[in-house]
Amino acid sequence: MIIVMKPHAKNESIEKIVRLIESRGCDAHISKGKEVTIIGVVGDKSRLSDQNLEIFEDVEKIVAVTESYKLANKKFHPEPTLVKVKDVTIGGGNLVIISGPCAVESREQLLSTAHAIKKAGAHILRGGAYKPRTSPYAFQGLEEEGLKYMKEASEETGLPVICEVTSQNAIEAAVKYVDMLQIGARNMQNFYLLKEAGKSGLPVLLKRGLSATIDEWLNASEYIIAEGNPNVVLCERGIRTFETATRNTLDISAVPVIKEKSHLPIIVDPSHASGVRAYVKPLAMSAVAAGADGLMIETHPNPEVALSDGPQSLTFEQFCELTEAVRPLAALVGKSI
Amino acid sequence: MIIVMKPHAKNESIEKIVRLIESRGCDAHISKGKEVTIIGVVGDKSRLSDQNLEIFEDVEKIVAVTESYKLANKKFHPEPTLVKVKDVTIGGGNLVIISGPCAVESREQLLSTAHAIKKAGAHILRGGAYKPRTSPYAFQGLEEEGLKYMKEASEETGLPVICEVTSQNAIEAAVKYVDMLQIGARNMQNFYLLKEAGKSGLPVLLKRGLSATIDEWLNASEYIIAEGNPNVVLCERGIRTFETATRNTLDISAVPVIKEKSHLPIIVDPSHASGVRAYVKPLAMSAVAAGADGLMIETHPNPEVALSDGPQSLTFEQFCELTEAVRPLAALVGKSI
Amino acid sequence: MIIVMKPHAKNESIEKIVRLIESRGCDAHISKGKEVTIIGVVGDKSRLSDQNLEIFEDVEKIVAVTESYKLANKKFHPEPTLVKVKDVTIGGGNLVIISGPCAVESREQLLSTAHAIKKAGAHILRGGAYKPRTSPYAFQGLEEEGLKYMKEASEETGLPVICEVTSQNAIEAAVKYVDMLQIGARNMQNFYLLKEAGKSGLPVLLKRGLSATIDEWLNASEYIIAEGNPNVVLCERGIRTFETATRNTLDISAVPVIKEKSHLPIIVDPSHASGVRAYVKPLAMSAVAAGADGLMIETHPNPEVALSDGPQSLTFEQFCELTEAVRPLAALVGKSI
Amino acid sequence: MIIVMKPHAKNESIEKIVRLIESRGCDAHISKGKEVTIIGVVGDKSRLSDQNLEIFEDVEKIVAVTESYKLANKKFHPEPTLVKVKDVTIGGGNLVIISGPCAVESREQLLSTAHAIKKAGAHILRGGAYKPRTSPYAFQGLEEEGLKYMKEASEETGLPVICEVTSQNAIEAAVKYVDMLQIGARNMQNFYLLKEAGKSGLPVLLKRGLSATIDEWLNASEYIIAEGNPNVVLCERGIRTFETATRNTLDISAVPVIKEKSHLPIIVDPSHASGVRAYVKPLAMSAVAAGADGLMIETHPNPEVALSDGPQSLTFEQFCELTEAVRPLAALVGKSI
Repeated sequence: MIIVMKPHAKNESIEKIVRLIESRGCDAHISKGKEVTIIGVVGDKSRLSDQNLEIFEDVEKIVAVTESYKLANKKFHPEPTLVKVKDVTIGGGNLVIISGPCAVESREQLLSTAHAIKKAGAHILRGGAYKPRTSPYAFQGLEEEGLKYMKEASEETGLPVICEVTSQNAIEAAVKYVDMLQIGARNMQNFYLLKEAGKSGLPVLLKRGLSATIDEWLNASEYIIAEGNPNVVLCERGIRTFETATRNTLDISAVPVIKEKSHLPIIVDPSHASGVRAYVKPLAMSAVAAGADGLMIETHPNPEVALSDGPQSLTFEQFCELTEAVRPLAALVGKSI
Repeated sequence: MIIVMKPHAKNESIEKIVRLIESRGCDAHISKGKEVTIIGVVGDKSRLSDQNLEIFEDVEKIVAVTESYKLANKKFHPEPTLVKVKDVTIGGGNLVIISGPCAVESREQLLSTAHAIKKAGAHILRGGAYKPRTSPYAFQGLEEEGLKYMKEASEETGLPVICEVTSQNAIEAAVKYVDMLQIGARNMQNFYLLKEAGKSGLPVLLKRGLSATIDEWLNASEYIIAEGNPNVVLCERGIRTFETATRNTLDISAVPVIKEKSHLPIIVDPSHASGVRAYVKPLAMSAVAAGADGLMIETHPNPEVALSDGPQSLTFEQFCELTEAVRPLAALVGKSI
Repeated sequence: MIIVMKPHAKNESIEKIVRLIESRGCDAHISKGKEVTIIGVVGDKSRLSDQNLEIFEDVEKIVAVTESYKLANKKFHPEPTLVKVKDVTIGGGNLVIISGPCAVESREQLLSTAHAIKKAGAHILRGGAYKPRTSPYAFQGLEEEGLKYMKEASEETGLPVICEVTSQNAIEAAVKYVDMLQIGARNMQNFYLLKEAGKSGLPVLLKRGLSATIDEWLNASEYIIAEGNPNVVLCERGIRTFETATRNTLDISAVPVIKEKSHLPIIVDPSHASGVRAYVKPLAMSAVAAGADGLMIETHPNPEVALSDGPQSLTFEQFCELTEAVRPLAALVGKSI
Repeated sequence: MIIVMKPHAKNESIEKIVRLIESRGCDAHISKGKEVTIIGVVGDKSRLSDQNLEIFEDVEKIVAVTESYKLANKKFHPEPTLVKVKDVTIGGGNLVIISGPCAVESREQLLSTAHAIKKAGAHILRGGAYKPRTSPYAFQGLEEEGLKYMKEASEETGLPVICEVTSQNAIEAAVKYVDMLQIGARNMQNFYLLKEAGKSGLPVLLKRGLSATIDEWLNASEYIIAEGNPNVVLCERGIRTFETATRNTLDISAVPVIKEKSHLPIIVDPSHASGVRAYVKPLAMSAVAAGADGLMIETHPNPEVALSDGPQSLTFEQFCELTEAVRPLAALVGKSI
């Protein structure tokens, strides 16, 4: 931690801070410049966490030197994390494709999708049973009935299944039926839910919040890991910007940034990022080329009548074309698929 | 709803859509221009909500004509809503000041704050017992113990009290001790929590999400009202932008925009919006001048050692100065305080 | 300047940097922490400006301690700047109202506006003769003919006049007719134009760019002042965010932030910030309450047929109402109007 | 154009608008719904461009149906544009790599770079002689001297050369020495400069503004084409968002969006988009996979002492690695390189 003092800070202001730092067992290193003085704090800075140094007299600003996330930080865990979802491994040179409908609408819809995506080469089936919707008048999901169809689809096809959870109740139901939990973008900083997901024991897919910085996203993952659950997969799904040609703006740079800062796997969801069917395939390609560990793609037997996110869902035929195109690209960048 | 067709849309594409609209009991009004054809849908468009018209063949885009929120919409409820919190009324020509610490830290801290803000003219005491924090290693709140101090402070001073809730458990505890629930920015689209808050029967302060549009914010309020709870107060607390000189960017325009679109009261929180103590007073003044129904201001007996949001908290003396400055301004803009 | 090294930085990497710093006549203060080492640079850091230290081996990041703008910086010039535009003084306890049409459309339109705003109490007449328009098919301005009408309106009413300039040619023409130049938001980082405006000798109104940080804005003002022209007035006119209820998002916090960081006057343009006539008055009120030194308000004899920005222009009657409301507020916050 | 009326709009308000539309030779198609009435305008809507219908009485909003750009619009020019820069063709199945230093610093620096990038397979040499810099105290470019080195480098290597221009003077100088002009992000809406670039006769690379929507970007290109110069290449270089892990946020979706809306070629600049050397290669890969027509990559003989943008510049060795990786990817997506 570095404390930057205001120009012409009084000596007594500097001395007050130095005494405080030393009284907590840390060392204060002072650099007096022509214009400003800076104080470097050496030692366990958490001993000062009860002090709001930025509003001490004559303090200009505080500069953090180390990240606040530790368990998700590559500096302390340089080896990449591999997350097992039944017999599928996310991370470590694999390219994993997750697909399925935004919302589970019926047994038939889900089973037909499960068979179709399996045939096209997907590894995990997704399906929403609890849907966070902007309007209370939109379809809110089949809840536990939907989870039962997920389990049946898994048993029929052998694909592991993932479902979004939006409350403690949903987690309690989901752990009985699915293999992986998803925390959606709108709940990325629902810290209560993160802790409960951490305690569930299941691997967790953590989507990035619409306006979350990468630093906040890794701190959110820290909530899950801190509950003793290291099996976290990050999912970039677009951030909110001023551009309206796409529903969100896919932050493709998040892939190399996460690879540099964290050991967690990262996948990309081009369906939610763009909101437009025609852009899903080129964005999926870009994600694989950038080094993503997987893709999450929405598919539906008949997108024209999908109850949620139809405009961005691929037909089975379009999904097949996408996996056909992704396969040689994965090989080119050294990923197993 | 208006359907804009692509240039050179085939007649059969247009006819297919018209037949669908009519089969649902709506009327289709066609305007054929030189370049494009548009189809106006007249009637109850919810009968078409299972159809994703934007991906029908030859459709360019769909334009919504009416807002998706109804209960919060001024068009259907032109009279301003008054929200009673015990004997304090928010809305309708009153300027209500809510104040208190970001987090309840101890009985002494809370009681001394309650007395100080009452003396300075505040109407409601705030205090966080469940704290959503970016890092899991930051102080997370006293939980039910904190709520008990809130109740005691309320009994001692006569001030009604408000506390943020972050889970169903927190709501169940809070209803026993406080007079108003707060849904924080990070939970604005935690729809499960919104419904539970709606069912609680208590008035609800709904903060705007960091990247929520005003339209999404009003839709979130709709979740609460739809549970039979019309006592919703909106709180603008800054949105996320590229600017870093302030913690968030106070969207002051939200005040007149909400006044035009909704009948719900709106207050402003300059403490979270700016994150900087020195900016709280000028922003509070701007909010009152823009027509806000109230202010939420963080205060602390000793901000230098506050466990949460110290840098933006006012001392009691600074809070007094603020209320002194606000009083004549409220009178000038015709508000009772 | 502070150099933060990576964890486990090699000693030779640190020594290489220290030697470089010392070879340039600066001092290096090293703080070795448990995790990371930081190096404080003391002395004239511009001597190191030819070195990209952030990509030196084992360097994590560089933290700037001082701002890059000097002439606009309050730290070095604590007294507020007063900008004279003929006999009108901007800054220093005055509230100055600038008004007029977005674009000069005709002699009659401009003269009638000039008389109307003068009667309502405005101090300076604005009018665009060179219009930067998103589409090449929109009205682009009357150019020099418009400037002549500006001069005539000034002579008739005694109001000083301001006009936006968009090129060196426009500056050369404008200096013959107007009393103050305006650099628009889209040209805030047209550094060539800033220098030319600086050389013109006229006072300059510098609008904030749509996505400019406050730091970049002050650096842009530095380009003008560095040409020997200290007469710069800043104008906040809304920034670009995700919100679409208003054309831009008025960053009202910019007022107290500029007051803290710079000695330059700052005015607010609620017309461009909102793009909606109904929001102009409440936002003007909020600006004055926040401490702005002035307002820029668009007016038009008949907004329904204005060639540019009609939807946000006030009628003369509406402008009168606004100045009536602003007057007692100015008195309340201690401003002369 | 569609006019959406307010609920309960008066008949006379509707009739006034219909009469206006018809008086201009257009047709008005009225759809009366239960809540609102909409009016579709059929005919040449430019005949109404002098009327600000959005502020007519009882009007809720105006919805544009067609884009304001015509010459850059794929709807009217479905064939992809090929832009010739001497014997290099951008667009139409080619992947073109532009590389060189951010700023021309010396003859030696530029010539060594030209030879190195040619050897690595680049097609066009870039180099800045007029540098728009945030601070007036940063290096501003060698101006005409730099252009002379560009011409010499072109003659020595046979590579065409491109240089950014920031003023009419710079254009007048540049046309004597270079083969393509670049309009930088900060000047994307410097409409005066766009027109002058259009008149120059040289092909133009138009970078996207930091906060420009894709619609505004295409409108900016329209300014150039409208001067009779169809040789415009678009360059996505990152937009401004709240994320700070990268200098800007590469909007990779811009590639498929532009491909759908326009016939102009689009290239990607991962150097400016990220600002970090380590992210340039993965982002370059993602751009090619998404369908970009080219890349613009900053290189420097010694990035540690580059006078501009060193931290994002590649060494020659790193640039070689990048072109080696891009080559098979280009083949995979069907591009000639």
